[in-house]
Amino acid sequence: MNRDIYQEPLVSRYTSREMQELFSERYKFTHWRKCWTALAEAQYELGLPAVTAEMVAELKANIDNINFEVATAKEREIRHDVMAHVYAYGQQCPLAEPIIHLGATSQFVVCNTDLFIQKQALQLIKKALIKVISNLAHFSVTHKDMATLGYTHYQPAQPTTVGKRNTLYIQDLLMDLDYLEQLENHIKARGAKGTVGTQATFIELFNGDHEKVRQLDQLVAQKIGFTQTFAVTGQTYPRKLDMKTAETLSGIGASAHKFAVDLRLLSNLKEQEEPFESKQVGSSAMAYKRNPMRAERMTGLARKLMGLPGNFAATAANQWFERTLDDSAIRRMDIPQAFLLTDAILKIYMNITSKMVVYPKQIEKHLKEELPFMATEKILMACVERGKSRQEMHEIIREYSVAAGFAVKHEGLANNLLELLAQDDRVPFSQQELDALLGDYQAFTGRAAMQTVEFLQQYVDPILEKYKHIIKDIDATIAV
Amino acid sequence: MNRDIYQEPLVSRYTSREMQELFSERYKFTHWRKCWTALAEAQYELGLPAVTAEMVAELKANIDNINFEVATAKEREIRHDVMAHVYAYGQQCPLAEPIIHLGATSQFVVCNTDLFIQKQALQLIKKALIKVISNLAHFSVTHKDMATLGYTHYQPAQPTTVGKRNTLYIQDLLMDLDYLEQLENHIKARGAKGTVGTQATFIELFNGDHEKVRQLDQLVAQKIGFTQTFAVTGQTYPRKLDMKTAETLSGIGASAHKFAVDLRLLSNLKEQEEPFESKQVGSSAMAYKRNPMRAERMTGLARKLMGLPGNFAATAANQWFERTLDDSAIRRMDIPQAFLLTDAILKIYMNITSKMVVYPKQIEKHLKEELPFMATEKILMACVERGKSRQEMHEIIREYSVAAGFAVKHEGLANNLLELLAQDDRVPFSQQELDALLGDYQAFTGRAAMQTVEFLQQYVDPILEKYKHIIKDIDATIAV
Amino acid sequence: MNRDIYQEPLVSRYTSREMQELFSERYKFTHWRKCWTALAEAQYELGLPAVTAEMVAELKANIDNINFEVATAKEREIRHDVMAHVYAYGQQCPLAEPIIHLGATSQFVVCNTDLFIQKQALQLIKKALIKVISNLAHFSVTHKDMATLGYTHYQPAQPTTVGKRNTLYIQDLLMDLDYLEQLENHIKARGAKGTVGTQATFIELFNGDHEKVRQLDQLVAQKIGFTQTFAVTGQTYPRKLDMKTAETLSGIGASAHKFAVDLRLLSNLKEQEEPFESKQVGSSAMAYKRNPMRAERMTGLARKLMGLPGNFAATAANQWFERTLDDSAIRRMDIPQAFLLTDAILKIYMNITSKMVVYPKQIEKHLKEELPFMATEKILMACVERGKSRQEMHEIIREYSVAAGFAVKHEGLANNLLELLAQDDRVPFSQQELDALLGDYQAFTGRAAMQTVEFLQQYVDPILEKYKHIIKDIDATIAV
Amino acid sequence: MNRDIYQEPLVSRYTSREMQELFSERYKFTHWRKCWTALAEAQYELGLPAVTAEMVAELKANIDNINFEVATAKEREIRHDVMAHVYAYGQQCPLAEPIIHLGATSQFVVCNTDLFIQKQALQLIKKALIKVISNLAHFSVTHKDMATLGYTHYQPAQPTTVGKRNTLYIQDLLMDLDYLEQLENHIKARGAKGTVGTQATFIELFNGDHEKVRQLDQLVAQKIGFTQTFAVTGQTYPRKLDMKTAETLSGIGASAHKFAVDLRLLSNLKEQEEPFESKQVGSSAMAYKRNPMRAERMTGLARKLMGLPGNFAATAANQWFERTLDDSAIRRMDIPQAFLLTDAILKIYMNITSKMVVYPKQIEKHLKEELPFMATEKILMACVERGKSRQEMHEIIREYSVAAGFAVKHEGLANNLLELLAQDDRVPFSQQELDALLGDYQAFTGRAAMQTVEFLQQYVDPILEKYKHIIKDIDATIAV
Repeated sequence: MNRDIYQEPLVSRYTSREMQELFSERYKFTHWRKCWTALAEAQYELGLPAVTAEMVAELKANIDNINFEVATAKEREIRHDVMAHVYAYGQQCPLAEPIIHLGATSQFVVCNTDLFIQKQALQLIKKALIKVISNLAHFSVTHKDMATLGYTHYQPAQPTTVGKRNTLYIQDLLMDLDYLEQLENHIKARGAKGTVGTQATFIELFNGDHEKVRQLDQLVAQKIGFTQTFAVTGQTYPRKLDMKTAETLSGIGASAHKFAVDLRLLSNLKEQEEPFESKQVGSSAMAYKRNPMRAERMTGLARKLMGLPGNFAATAANQWFERTLDDSAIRRMDIPQAFLLTDAILKIYMNITSKMVVYPKQIEKHLKEELPFMATEKILMACVERGKSRQEMHEIIREYSVAAGFAVKHEGLANNLLELLAQDDRVPFSQQELDALLGDYQAFTGRAAMQTVEFLQQYVDPILEKYKHIIKDIDATIAV
Repeated sequence: MNRDIYQEPLVSRYTSREMQELFSERYKFTHWRKCWTALAEAQYELGLPAVTAEMVAELKANIDNINFEVATAKEREIRHDVMAHVYAYGQQCPLAEPIIHLGATSQFVVCNTDLFIQKQALQLIKKALIKVISNLAHFSVTHKDMATLGYTHYQPAQPTTVGKRNTLYIQDLLMDLDYLEQLENHIKARGAKGTVGTQATFIELFNGDHEKVRQLDQLVAQKIGFTQTFAVTGQTYPRKLDMKTAETLSGIGASAHKFAVDLRLLSNLKEQEEPFESKQVGSSAMAYKRNPMRAERMTGLARKLMGLPGNFAATAANQWFERTLDDSAIRRMDIPQAFLLTDAILKIYMNITSKMVVYPKQIEKHLKEELPFMATEKILMACVERGKSRQEMHEIIREYSVAAGFAVKHEGLANNLLELLAQDDRVPFSQQELDALLGDYQAFTGRAAMQTVEFLQQYVDPILEKYKHIIKDIDATIAV
Repeated sequence: MNRDIYQEPLVSRYTSREMQELFSERYKFTHWRKCWTALAEAQYELGLPAVTAEMVAELKANIDNINFEVATAKEREIRHDVMAHVYAYGQQCPLAEPIIHLGATSQFVVCNTDLFIQKQALQLIKKALIKVISNLAHFSVTHKDMATLGYTHYQPAQPTTVGKRNTLYIQDLLMDLDYLEQLENHIKARGAKGTVGTQATFIELFNGDHEKVRQLDQLVAQKIGFTQTFAVTGQTYPRKLDMKTAETLSGIGASAHKFAVDLRLLSNLKEQEEPFESKQVGSSAMAYKRNPMRAERMTGLARKLMGLPGNFAATAANQWFERTLDDSAIRRMDIPQAFLLTDAILKIYMNITSKMVVYPKQIEKHLKEELPFMATEKILMACVERGKSRQEMHEIIREYSVAAGFAVKHEGLANNLLELLAQDDRVPFSQQELDALLGDYQAFTGRAAMQTVEFLQQYVDPILEKYKHIIKDIDATIAV
Repeated sequence: MNRDIYQEPLVSRYTSREMQELFSERYKFTHWRKCWTALAEAQYELGLPAVTAEMVAELKANIDNINFEVATAKEREIRHDVMAHVYAYGQQCPLAEPIIHLGATSQFVVCNTDLFIQKQALQLIKKALIKVISNLAHFSVTHKDMATLGYTHYQPAQPTTVGKRNTLYIQDLLMDLDYLEQLENHIKARGAKGTVGTQATFIELFNGDHEKVRQLDQLVAQKIGFTQTFAVTGQTYPRKLDMKTAETLSGIGASAHKFAVDLRLLSNLKEQEEPFESKQVGSSAMAYKRNPMRAERMTGLARKLMGLPGNFAATAANQWFERTLDDSAIRRMDIPQAFLLTDAILKIYMNITSKMVVYPKQIEKHLKEELPFMATEKILMACVERGKSRQEMHEIIREYSVAAGFAVKHEGLANNLLELLAQDDRVPFSQQELDALLGDYQAFTGRAAMQTVEFLQQYVDPILEKYKHIIKDIDATIAV
């Protein structure tokens, strides 16, 4: 690492090697050569006399051994990276040299390679996404009937279960996955379209044979890993696609952000926590202290990710005619950033969900503190069943609720509502009986446990089954 | 219109009455009543003794005659709009009064109604979107082989055709349509889920019968116009859906913005223009002047629309636990704004594309001015065919190109490249011959015309066929 | 209110009448007339023969009695609002009719009025802002030495005081105020500049007398309430100014948002709350429950406000040459929105801070629960003073800290660290003595109280003194 | 450069070495040591017995020779960068080792260093900004009376001058400069404030002597290059400041973006261009072609820069209590990005404005083509002076205007309005006379030239004078 100039922290700190490599020069320029080879081979197969089998073979043999120094030197001279790499490739392929890039424009290699890299990057994202879904599914099923306070306004509302709450995070991620699959359908090759998309040079090469030019477009696409090409293009593939890509990734960011914020609140409540790495040393004075640093980092990374789609929208919306170059610098930064950020976020999300820590006693304690308030309706009904006037009981309960709430806030005391009620002779229950009424607080969670099971079976299992081959060997270790 | 306080210009100036009505109080509160009726009816059908057929009939009979004054007075008193409307409805339905809203929480009517309104609003958007696609398809096919300068960097690059260029706008809109259809699949009812989504009150009402509560959820959804419900929810439907909605609409904004900017540039070039309304009076001094005001307005509206998704992402990402109320005020503004903006944009887009004006002579003039530069490769090859040295010819042509370019910019003269070449004895062509070489400039457009036809047949026709029933009677008149 | 079409909720729900009026048609068109009158008067004063004292008097007499029906009818006919209002004014001022708008372009009235309205709107904002600062200052001084847990990572860190924490909110608002004052300096009149800003018509009117045209520009500005004009303009005042305006207001949004989120967390902790309106009825079952609805609303409104500056940046950045109209529709919506949102936010902020509720017992309880952990350093030092080995004691304390933390989280028990330490013979203190060591927890708050006082004296008092005349009679009642 | 993983293009392609160094590890860690030294020295000067002159001297002697390998190894072990660097520094300063970081928290070095780096970075930005202003001022004065078409709606409006148009860009930049200076006033040291800002450890170190702790705060700040400290802080300096920083830089982006887009349009018009680098080779076929690549790059970089402030607003608005760590990752990326982007943009802006190319003949040609339309008012008045009826003449002129406009658009012909008028006997002028009427088109530019001069003298000269010492030796070479 060069300590004398700025180093991008996404690479030096947060992301997976696999994703970093996808956006490297080596990966890009190697794929350029694949594009040139595919073009030559397709031209050969379609009978273009200028291209021979020997040339194609020579090109194929030299895909991986890029002579970077030659390309770099040439680029310094002519200031055109595509032409510099054509030249360098030609140096290694004397036979094929005259037909490298034949009929093509720079964006032939640039666009097709950009698209392929993003296709591959999406695979990495998908893999991680499914792993997180799998982790959360296991967590949900394990805690499907652990009752916990449900919050609205971050005020106690009604009980739910820990498992049920986590199905909400999963449901968000399933929507992300659905949009990711949708996006995959939209990522097509630019194929062989020419300077402004008219295929003018190719129709000339093939003497006006439209069918052959159409085949060339398809054939090249297949050889570089696509099943479809864009039907029409200007000089580049539509920048609108980039907008959809950014939105898809940003969606994952939003889902992760919501989860992370909830976890940070749960950490404060001491109900749930990030896994504690064995190597991680707490501060000496407060050895027990565990800051939710990973969830906080996730929050920050997700915020940045969610800030990117606007850029892509502006670029798509401001491309003039067949193409303007105001897309270049910003895409060069933002496309890798969007993927690297998503990679970083999912790495943390995988890590956290792999062994999330739950403190059932704390959860129960908090629930019990609020339960009396939540149970007033139930107590009221029980009193009526024992022959008491509904109206009288309602007023009594209301008064004591206010008093108990007051005691909690103003006196810092525990919730003593049941005690207060039991002490009042008008209430036909002893404290023990009242406690019993509240005892099965599971009953307050409604269908939460069942919903969890149904949801996992109906929505998650099919996904995990479909993708079981890709989530086996994932590494989720992260630097804390 | 009240002139004494601020009036939202989206309503007073830009949008369709249909869309304005969808987001009105009347529409909302009427649908609340539909929700309550559906709930009662479903409860009745599932055998809940408390609900009778008479009650359901009474509710049904009073859906449309909302007693707003009662609701308003009650709301002023208790400051709770849902309870105020329950009360008002009850006033008109004495029989059903005790069972209105039975087991439900406020978000039962609020969420289900929000979702339904958006579903309907999307239909309006889809209709307008397809109409624009249809207009552009007609325009493209009409101008499929009208050669025009293709621009990269907003500098002349290679010729394309007017029709082909317009297929690019269509392709963008097809992507929007695809995402709109995808979104429709994600808009489900919230159904009957309860305060924090556990269906606790409903499982109690149905004495623990899970199957009946599941049925209730589905049945209610069907009765209010949905085929599916969200599998799990907190207090509200997932705010992530709103993010997707905003992105889908914003995508239309981006497509429209690109088109509008291109048209504004074409207006400057005097090549293409907005239709001129017969009623529209140009300024007296410059009677011929036609400012692209509609395209400019589209640009501004689209900019605002593209600025909204970030808000929805932030709301989705910052909802704590089962729900916090920081979503309320912002959704109340941004959801209508997003739909109204899209409505306004598409209204203009329909209007412009319905009779876009083209000036073929100007297009040809500009093409001819640049054609000599674009044809140098062709001239070079012709010279070589007549036995000249490629290298010598290349240098000659290069020099005169520079000279001609210089003349244009520095002297403000017309492009005289062919003249210069013809005057040089080393060039084996007369000016007439050179002119002839360039004559068929159609040949420079490659497959543009054919691409246009293929694209329309393969991608657009099926869409227009699929939706032909909905685009018949659209009104695209707008105030200029 | 029209229930049949969409109504902007900013107006119908959240904002002050004063701000709504500033952005009304009446206010705008009245100021247009002021601009025309100012122009005529200035021309008269500078000796332009065409303009007479009688004309000016006639114009002045008719500023307020706008004949809206005439203007509206005319606008429907000619589709040009400025010309329609010139016509309507002329109808009422037969003498002055020929010289209304003399030498001016539409943007003369439009820009100058826009600028003036914003100038006035900023005054309302400033007033509210200072009132909030004043409220928070009173709150801070009152609670300057109330010790409370300071949080980092939303985990207990070190104690601070309630008053000190609130100085941080004030400091943010002081920065906002500083930028607001800075903005006021940048809001100048557009003055009298002409179609593309060259003052061509005016220099012609004054026969080439540059000095008079300069004076005209200044004079008009003064007459409509400005001390300065923009030095140069295109057709409009620089849209860059709007960007600064939006950023200034958005800054207030960010400050308010941070405060609101903290308050929502404090509400969950039951430490601090919004004031409870006497009219506000809690739910019957949970009469004590108080949702932080105002803070939540503030959060949502602030989120929307913070989403606006990007629009203004895009508009400023994309204005072509002397002006394009893509600014019109978006500014027409976003400028009022930005001010109305800020107005709504500050209204809530004033209301909340006017009588914020604090629960000292809860605060103390939470502090005491965590204090033992925070005091370990102090205990360690005390042990060493009593002759114990630092290293041995450090290890003992560490072990018991872990045990106590474990008990809290895993067992849901209270923090028993001191108890554990006291029971160990190696620790030379009884529990009583340890309690005493922690007793004066005020000592853990460092300079918090003193900082509060110093800060208020040094930074806030001068501001309140400077603006004392404007914060007397502010109304902060809001609908809950 | 590592070709195997992603490399941040801001560094590898666009920015100045100076700016890259400011955000390097070396710069940061060196400044950490300066902070520690300043703290020790201040403690020594204020009489803290634990700190000796020898210790301070030792620390000073070792500021620059950072033993990175020691720090890195330690960080890998304890995962805490500040403590690792304390350790490494201590290894080199055995005497001072016990008192390094005495009483401080991590954010003491982190915040103070962040603030200092940004202060320095702002100096680089200011320097470049003033250089651009200077370049544009020279350009404006040179072209102050070169008449050119002024555009509204990108349609010809009224003439202005090239110099006057460029004063608008300058005026935008002056606003940026003003906000930059404002920001400089807000960048203060965090000073010595402690974990949650209470200075608890320092007041303990100084035995409750408030005055000394206040002095410590100031003294440290001065020693590390600040004149002021934040009055109050939580654990960090207020994140609101970052928001202001981002907005200030983004403002420069917006100004540059507007300029760049105008220049790209002017390039299309062949009126004005980027300087052509001698080394830059045009394409062989179109040797004359000059794409506005730098202006396009500027546009893209500015778009990204304008996309950043929203992130900072969200971070400021979502910091909980005394600090949460969701600011860390995003600030680590976005602060350098914001400065590097601004650096890159201004580098291009300097380069372009240093020798912008103007084509007067083209400008004149375009002006003349539209001038007849613009001159109709003048012709009308001349006719009336020769005794013709205003109304009749108006109608004649209107008709021919329409006809001429029609000819231009529909026939692709030149504007022949004067010819048409001259041929009509009712018009009392020969074509020669009409040409003469339009001859002095300078007269149509109003006060543009004079405004330019006045503006430069009144607003720009004082700035250039004030900052003349800092703009002498700026390098603006950029890679094309």
